[in-house]
Amino acid sequence: MMIETSLVTRENETRSNSLKRDYEALGERLDRQGIAIDTIKGKVAAYGVAVPSWGVGTGGTRFARFPGKGEPRNIFDKLEDCAVIQQLTRATPSVSLHIPWDKADPSDLKAKAGALGLGFDAMNSNTFQDQDGQALSYKFGSLSHTDAATRRQAIEHNLECIELGRAIGSRALTIWVGDGSNFPGQSHFTRQFEHYLDSARTIYAQLPDDWRLFTEHKMYEPAFYSTVVQDWGTNYLIAKELGDRAYCLVDLGHHAPNVNIEMIVARLVQFGKLGGFHFNDSKYGDDDLDTGSIDPYRLFLVFNELVDAETRRAPGFDPAHMLDQSHNVTDPIESLMVSAMEVQRAYAQALLVDRKALEGFQQDNDALMATTTLKTAFRTDVEPILAMARLESGGAIDPVAAYRASGYRNKVADIRPEVSGAGGGIV
Amino acid sequence: MMIETSLVTRENETRSNSLKRDYEALGERLDRQGIAIDTIKGKVAAYGVAVPSWGVGTGGTRFARFPGKGEPRNIFDKLEDCAVIQQLTRATPSVSLHIPWDKADPSDLKAKAGALGLGFDAMNSNTFQDQDGQALSYKFGSLSHTDAATRRQAIEHNLECIELGRAIGSRALTIWVGDGSNFPGQSHFTRQFEHYLDSARTIYAQLPDDWRLFTEHKMYEPAFYSTVVQDWGTNYLIAKELGDRAYCLVDLGHHAPNVNIEMIVARLVQFGKLGGFHFNDSKYGDDDLDTGSIDPYRLFLVFNELVDAETRRAPGFDPAHMLDQSHNVTDPIESLMVSAMEVQRAYAQALLVDRKALEGFQQDNDALMATTTLKTAFRTDVEPILAMARLESGGAIDPVAAYRASGYRNKVADIRPEVSGAGGGIV
Amino acid sequence: MMIETSLVTRENETRSNSLKRDYEALGERLDRQGIAIDTIKGKVAAYGVAVPSWGVGTGGTRFARFPGKGEPRNIFDKLEDCAVIQQLTRATPSVSLHIPWDKADPSDLKAKAGALGLGFDAMNSNTFQDQDGQALSYKFGSLSHTDAATRRQAIEHNLECIELGRAIGSRALTIWVGDGSNFPGQSHFTRQFEHYLDSARTIYAQLPDDWRLFTEHKMYEPAFYSTVVQDWGTNYLIAKELGDRAYCLVDLGHHAPNVNIEMIVARLVQFGKLGGFHFNDSKYGDDDLDTGSIDPYRLFLVFNELVDAETRRAPGFDPAHMLDQSHNVTDPIESLMVSAMEVQRAYAQALLVDRKALEGFQQDNDALMATTTLKTAFRTDVEPILAMARLESGGAIDPVAAYRASGYRNKVADIRPEVSGAGGGIV
Amino acid sequence: MMIETSLVTRENETRSNSLKRDYEALGERLDRQGIAIDTIKGKVAAYGVAVPSWGVGTGGTRFARFPGKGEPRNIFDKLEDCAVIQQLTRATPSVSLHIPWDKADPSDLKAKAGALGLGFDAMNSNTFQDQDGQALSYKFGSLSHTDAATRRQAIEHNLECIELGRAIGSRALTIWVGDGSNFPGQSHFTRQFEHYLDSARTIYAQLPDDWRLFTEHKMYEPAFYSTVVQDWGTNYLIAKELGDRAYCLVDLGHHAPNVNIEMIVARLVQFGKLGGFHFNDSKYGDDDLDTGSIDPYRLFLVFNELVDAETRRAPGFDPAHMLDQSHNVTDPIESLMVSAMEVQRAYAQALLVDRKALEGFQQDNDALMATTTLKTAFRTDVEPILAMARLESGGAIDPVAAYRASGYRNKVADIRPEVSGAGGGIV
Repeated sequence: MMIETSLVTRENETRSNSLKRDYEALGERLDRQGIAIDTIKGKVAAYGVAVPSWGVGTGGTRFARFPGKGEPRNIFDKLEDCAVIQQLTRATPSVSLHIPWDKADPSDLKAKAGALGLGFDAMNSNTFQDQDGQALSYKFGSLSHTDAATRRQAIEHNLECIELGRAIGSRALTIWVGDGSNFPGQSHFTRQFEHYLDSARTIYAQLPDDWRLFTEHKMYEPAFYSTVVQDWGTNYLIAKELGDRAYCLVDLGHHAPNVNIEMIVARLVQFGKLGGFHFNDSKYGDDDLDTGSIDPYRLFLVFNELVDAETRRAPGFDPAHMLDQSHNVTDPIESLMVSAMEVQRAYAQALLVDRKALEGFQQDNDALMATTTLKTAFRTDVEPILAMARLESGGAIDPVAAYRASGYRNKVADIRPEVSGAGGGIV
Repeated sequence: MMIETSLVTRENETRSNSLKRDYEALGERLDRQGIAIDTIKGKVAAYGVAVPSWGVGTGGTRFARFPGKGEPRNIFDKLEDCAVIQQLTRATPSVSLHIPWDKADPSDLKAKAGALGLGFDAMNSNTFQDQDGQALSYKFGSLSHTDAATRRQAIEHNLECIELGRAIGSRALTIWVGDGSNFPGQSHFTRQFEHYLDSARTIYAQLPDDWRLFTEHKMYEPAFYSTVVQDWGTNYLIAKELGDRAYCLVDLGHHAPNVNIEMIVARLVQFGKLGGFHFNDSKYGDDDLDTGSIDPYRLFLVFNELVDAETRRAPGFDPAHMLDQSHNVTDPIESLMVSAMEVQRAYAQALLVDRKALEGFQQDNDALMATTTLKTAFRTDVEPILAMARLESGGAIDPVAAYRASGYRNKVADIRPEVSGAGGGIV
Repeated sequence: MMIETSLVTRENETRSNSLKRDYEALGERLDRQGIAIDTIKGKVAAYGVAVPSWGVGTGGTRFARFPGKGEPRNIFDKLEDCAVIQQLTRATPSVSLHIPWDKADPSDLKAKAGALGLGFDAMNSNTFQDQDGQALSYKFGSLSHTDAATRRQAIEHNLECIELGRAIGSRALTIWVGDGSNFPGQSHFTRQFEHYLDSARTIYAQLPDDWRLFTEHKMYEPAFYSTVVQDWGTNYLIAKELGDRAYCLVDLGHHAPNVNIEMIVARLVQFGKLGGFHFNDSKYGDDDLDTGSIDPYRLFLVFNELVDAETRRAPGFDPAHMLDQSHNVTDPIESLMVSAMEVQRAYAQALLVDRKALEGFQQDNDALMATTTLKTAFRTDVEPILAMARLESGGAIDPVAAYRASGYRNKVADIRPEVSGAGGGIV
Repeated sequence: MMIETSLVTRENETRSNSLKRDYEALGERLDRQGIAIDTIKGKVAAYGVAVPSWGVGTGGTRFARFPGKGEPRNIFDKLEDCAVIQQLTRATPSVSLHIPWDKADPSDLKAKAGALGLGFDAMNSNTFQDQDGQALSYKFGSLSHTDAATRRQAIEHNLECIELGRAIGSRALTIWVGDGSNFPGQSHFTRQFEHYLDSARTIYAQLPDDWRLFTEHKMYEPAFYSTVVQDWGTNYLIAKELGDRAYCLVDLGHHAPNVNIEMIVARLVQFGKLGGFHFNDSKYGDDDLDTGSIDPYRLFLVFNELVDAETRRAPGFDPAHMLDQSHNVTDPIESLMVSAMEVQRAYAQALLVDRKALEGFQQDNDALMATTTLKTAFRTDVEPILAMARLESGGAIDPVAAYRASGYRNKVADIRPEVSGAGGGIV
């Protein structure tokens, strides 16, 4: 354990009486609605969301990056930070790696993760940057580049990610590319997409039988006029063209303004192509803010679709859940803990929806009572459920307080050298 | 002819010398670029865009409608107004009807249109309003309503549109529904879409062999939380589910803010599902402003895709072209004439693109020269080509000037009674 | 009382035991945080939001309007509906009139409102529609029209609104105009705004000393290229130019996509120009959906600013609160009751924010704890506080249930004739 | 001269005959409209737009930066690149410096610029990044930081910029800060803005009498929940609070989606606070694409306002013009040349607007003819005017062709070492 369990115990002791009282009061109230609080708690306790390895470092913008204290130096430091998140929240049992940033000897990775009680989630490839010593540049694209050799290089990199993933027990590859264009006319939309599809097919052909391929769409950035996989429509076409193990990944921040994301989720569920999520929140673009920090009701509405699909046992429904955020002004460990709990919160609230009543209101077009049914679940303060689930599985009632009390950040800052943010801006 | 040809001739005479000089100068310049101006003129002359029957009446908003003088009283008045547009622009040979607004005896319709030299384009059904005497209300939806009888009523209406269309020589049905919801939870996304698909399949099953079915997507309005056919992704799924004669219709104003529409056009071309267009322009939402009035370069970029597909002979490429606008502050005839010419202008400009050079720049990732290639075509003032095409086919060099000189609006205002806009607002 | 008090009593009796238990549990929990629940309840009980007279009728879009049963025929019917809302929620003590829709003999208005226990809030003028018999049309604008006589007519109408308002005890005039343009070049921005300012100054000069003038900005609709009072920047300039009793009104749905509305509220408070609110919610444009139905956290963040200003005793801070919604698919009375409670809910949640702690976190740039402080307040389920406040002041614990049990809608439907929605669409 | 004049002469010789013919044809046509082409040419020739020193280096995103060949190593290399732009286009006589990036001995700067025939435009301060050795971090803000010492440091930096600017002949300071917040509650809007105003007042107090202070607003990025100077409303308040020499700078990419920018320009002109522009183009956010590359008509509409103000001799109207772009996929020199010409093009087109006719159409609410008046000017291909102005002042008829023919990029690539883009990404 990265943080002494005695400290966690002490921290919990100061809060357990209040928690019990709140849990009982909520339990009594839910009982009146015919809901068994322990059942909800059990589902919450069984729920996990993966942490992105890159999320434990301080993020930034093209203008600047302001590192914090004790920035992780490598994947092994990152895994330790991830272990802290899992220890205190019990909500993040696995880590998603990004290659080549996290490239390391597979047995070392497995050993370290095993020691920390962590598993490995989807592998993420990177063809949106050039790496030192790379033969061909991705300046003008990767999987959809006009040059066949560059496409081949990008394909090889993805195959290498699969190979490493197999060695450490991952079961999925996530592909996000920045390919697109900055000027009208720069790229031929159709040829570019054909190149993308050809490359993706080659990767898919090498996908192990028990793996899934997730492709991610995004409206813009880093390309500012057009992006090859710009929306769920194109993403769906990709998954359809590739085959049964190809699925669409939904990042909550990758859509046009005002788009109804929960409806996209429903469509992908309906057509058997929802692969999973990159959770975060945003107000303007792909802001990568902490999940639920800007529009918690939207997050709830997404989970309302997920619980609906789960309840209906929608065919093939088995989405992967991952956080994907950029922590520019907070301690990344704190943000990831809070975000994991926000995801659990939305899940717990969605579990409280009276689906039988809702279906009736929907059938009768009683819009007011239908939406009130959702709102009633949403405004229930489920914090006691989440906290009790944490407490009972060895986590902290208040993870941020326990983390701060532990002095973890200062301890790693003694070991990990200070990082300068100077000159990092790309304007 | 609705307007005396002698008037048109007189009007043209005052402008023909200047036109000839401008046409020659442009021809000489294009010749230097290896482009034969007469070829472009020929293509422009052969191009036509359909006029919507409802477009010749003054439009409005939920707040108010301010009718103009001489508002058409019925479809026969509307056809006369459409004939004026075609007479002066030679760019709008057909009219698209909207049922039940334009319901009439088919032989009367054919006779009137024949006399005016007009044909009939796609039929448009209307299940977004309730009509007097209608058994069941569309308040909560039509083709996707939770009630089977209401869905059936909406299906029957569409079949009636097909029947009337067959009788008057139409070859396509366009379906746009306002179905959706105003509150989270009001509708079950998946069941609602299943209902829509079932209804659409029933209509499709009755589609004559030589007809096409166009479905239209729209992000929002009249539904303000979710819309059943909300984007091209859902629209594509519909066309795919229905069959080979089902296609997607793209209305330029029906997308989320900032969306790259020309790319959607390219995707639909690539996957054989581009049915056609409702042309208009917009700055905020589905503003239904005059085509090309807000962002003429965007219109050009759409036509750049169309000419590219035409040049490549993309399989199954044969989109329908129609205007769909709301004229709130202009004389609708003038707006439709100018808009038809704007569509022609974008087409002519797109024909000027040096596609061989463009392909080379794209292959070499020479973004600057690629985009300059488009810009060079766009900034060519092709007005002399359009005007010469009009002149040679009996139209007006300056249709708006000729129309105003004709006094048509005042003449019909003498016949058609004044319409009050009072109290029309729905706030 | 529009609804028998015995019915309300009966309805409350079935819910009062649960409410007491929930209120006690919440009170105990808040007590641990140092918050006295009764103080919060007292503030909530004292809070009121005005109801718009036009809100009790079914709304619509330019495409259609689908009336419900028992639509109010005139202002007296509307006042009765408003009285139901106030009776059951105790949150809506006053009504805002819209002229000429609600024009009537002032003494009749006062007598009716008095009998129903209602007061009159701000008067709303209407120069965005033409009325029967109106001399000059507002098709091309009203207060900013290029024609002086039309501007004068619009000014006179506003003065008439003030006169009627004085007679019935109103203390404010709200001006919203649709003036703008649909085409680049149609209007000269500067001359148009000068006209607006001149007209507004003339109205302001006649404003009674104890009145306030509220002007409303809106990004677009009904004008689709430019709007004279398009944003808070222009609105601020107006209020500044006019004088001390001129203020800006903020309608939550009148902003560009993604705009941070709570920050605009803060700026207007800081510069002494926040006049008040038109509450509603929206996902796309000025959707006029029920308050808090789409993004309840945004509503809370607005109230967080209001409570902050109240706490700081910001100079001149005294905003007016009004609902402004369009109820297209619900019973308007139900929507207005729920919306009034949502406004109260946001207020109650904002009162729970630990402002001392928040200020410390802000000063220390502890972003995570600062935002957690807001979230902790927001996720508190304050329903027991609201319900207890209603119960103790004679309202209903569950206003919608009581309303439905009362059969009010059916009763008025027997008296008020059915309204047809046929043909209402303006496309 | 950075490029041999003989090469430019040779390049021009191959194009001058065609240019003369096109210029004459256009002249003849404009003459028919009563416009003297030489007058337009003269105004275009006299027009200049400043180049940003940082624009000549390859830009990037938070994901990656892909440098090109011959990246400038320092401000002296940058000035040479800027001189190429000015030599070939004759449209960019001055350079805008960014401190500390361009910090150097003032006399060296003056000498180098003088030798290259360049002047210095506005100075740009940088408090959105931390610099090596900087005492206090801007992670949580600069001029609006909660800590007085940090604010003081930011103030001092701005004063240093003024000092350097004085020494090299600049006459303006441009302030753009990234200050804001990423989480609701992180910052107190009002206190934060008060801090900003206090800091800005301190800087303004030290502004030389013949200088102007430009402040820039921006909706978001790098702050993703709120930004201190988020829009023109706040920007106007700043300029108003500071005094007569404080003005608002408008960057075309810094607004909310769909905002009517030309109207903001008109408002700032009307209230005497338009300081100037950062020209660029964008489709999604602050994309910093090449000016006019996405929506050339919008650029024209901005210039339409400028020429209108110029024509009306609006009091105090004297805006500064500067490019501000990020060149990620093109040779920055080429992009800046093309962009400078696009700005000139919009200016030339706006000069062609028949303002007398326009005013009449506006007064008569003839929306169609008013907008047609603008369109007629916009669609005039003014390239011959721009090219002739360049030719006559020693520039290139086709600057990009001449630049490519010169081999300048390869020559500097021999001198300037290759730059790696590896690992530059901040995700």
